[in-house]
Amino acid sequence: MTEKQVRQRLDPAERQEMILEAALRLFEKNQFSAVSMRQIAAACGVNMALLYHYFGNRDELVRATLRHAIDAFVRDFSSQPPDPKAPLGAADAWLDATTSSAPRLQRMVKLMADFSATGNRDAEAQQMVDEFYHRERETFEGAIRAGIAEGRFRNVDPVRTARLTSIALDGIFYAGPPRNDYAFAQNIRDLRDQLLDYLQPDL
Amino acid sequence: MTEKQVRQRLDPAERQEMILEAALRLFEKNQFSAVSMRQIAAACGVNMALLYHYFGNRDELVRATLRHAIDAFVRDFSSQPPDPKAPLGAADAWLDATTSSAPRLQRMVKLMADFSATGNRDAEAQQMVDEFYHRERETFEGAIRAGIAEGRFRNVDPVRTARLTSIALDGIFYAGPPRNDYAFAQNIRDLRDQLLDYLQPDL
Repeated sequence: MTEKQVRQRLDPAERQEMILEAALRLFEKNQFSAVSMRQIAAACGVNMALLYHYFGNRDELVRATLRHAIDAFVRDFSSQPPDPKAPLGAADAWLDATTSSAPRLQRMVKLMADFSATGNRDAEAQQMVDEFYHRERETFEGAIRAGIAEGRFRNVDPVRTARLTSIALDGIFYAGPPRNDYAFAQNIRDLRDQLLDYLQPDL
Repeated sequence: MTEKQVRQRLDPAERQEMILEAALRLFEKNQFSAVSMRQIAAACGVNMALLYHYFGNRDELVRATLRHAIDAFVRDFSSQPPDPKAPLGAADAWLDATTSSAPRLQRMVKLMADFSATGNRDAEAQQMVDEFYHRERETFEGAIRAGIAEGRFRNVDPVRTARLTSIALDGIFYAGPPRNDYAFAQNIRDLRDQLLDYLQPDL
């Protein structure tokens, strides 16, 4: 079976997903505002008509790419039922998902950064980004509150601790390329270990 | 005195600095690789000939902009003699400098991120970035080691703790725009307070 035949057998949902994955890779190296629909079509290996048929225009396609990246991460997170013995519960599942999705997550934050760098923010994109961070903070906060309530953790400020953990996780992903540090799994493990150290009650 | 007269009275070093500051602002909103020398000249209010005279070509100008941003930060840091009573010593002076230089630092990390996003990395730029991070980590590590040696801090891993603090600080700056969180001073204060909490010996 040739590659062309494989492609033709994709249903529309699969084909859209394939396009969005290719677009996400393209936007990692090129700020989306500097990329034309023609370049996107070439990178995705589809014709322009199909691209316009599925996504309407470039802005819609870029938003769909962000939506796709966030949804794929959340699916990955939700598919891992929290280990009842994991000290950070759902937050441990979140950290595991960031580890297993690291390459796509790195592309996702690049797209988030590029959305925010342009002078006029895209309100729809910002809402998706806000929801993502809200969910991340809630997940950490819930895990910390649960540990404090059960006497397993010190009585720290759960809001501040959750926010700083989310910010540190951002540091790992956003600053990976400039630091030339792609040891995502190791850095996430270190961040988690330090957090658990910090939450350890005085004995 | 008109603005033009003021400008004419700048000596070459001052005029170059003025150009580099304007370029740094321009590159905050526009990836430098998508900006022409003509646009830079217009943004800086100088003519193209002067720009080429000072900087040779666009690549040199962009590198000089990064150099300028890093040097301005290090000057700011070095001009604050460490408070002998500050628990983190030179690291406290570093954090104070990141707070007072926050707007310029935000532009600097955007430029660092854009340098690393392009497929072929600029070796000279990467060296400047590496030196900056090396200095940051050394500053934190030295402060943590000193506190441990003097019995003021717990016996944590100074290398890991310094690296994670540097990464968290990156999270504050790189992810500020996408998170729409520009409370740099507050976030840096929280990060420092959490670090001191973490370093506190068990009583």
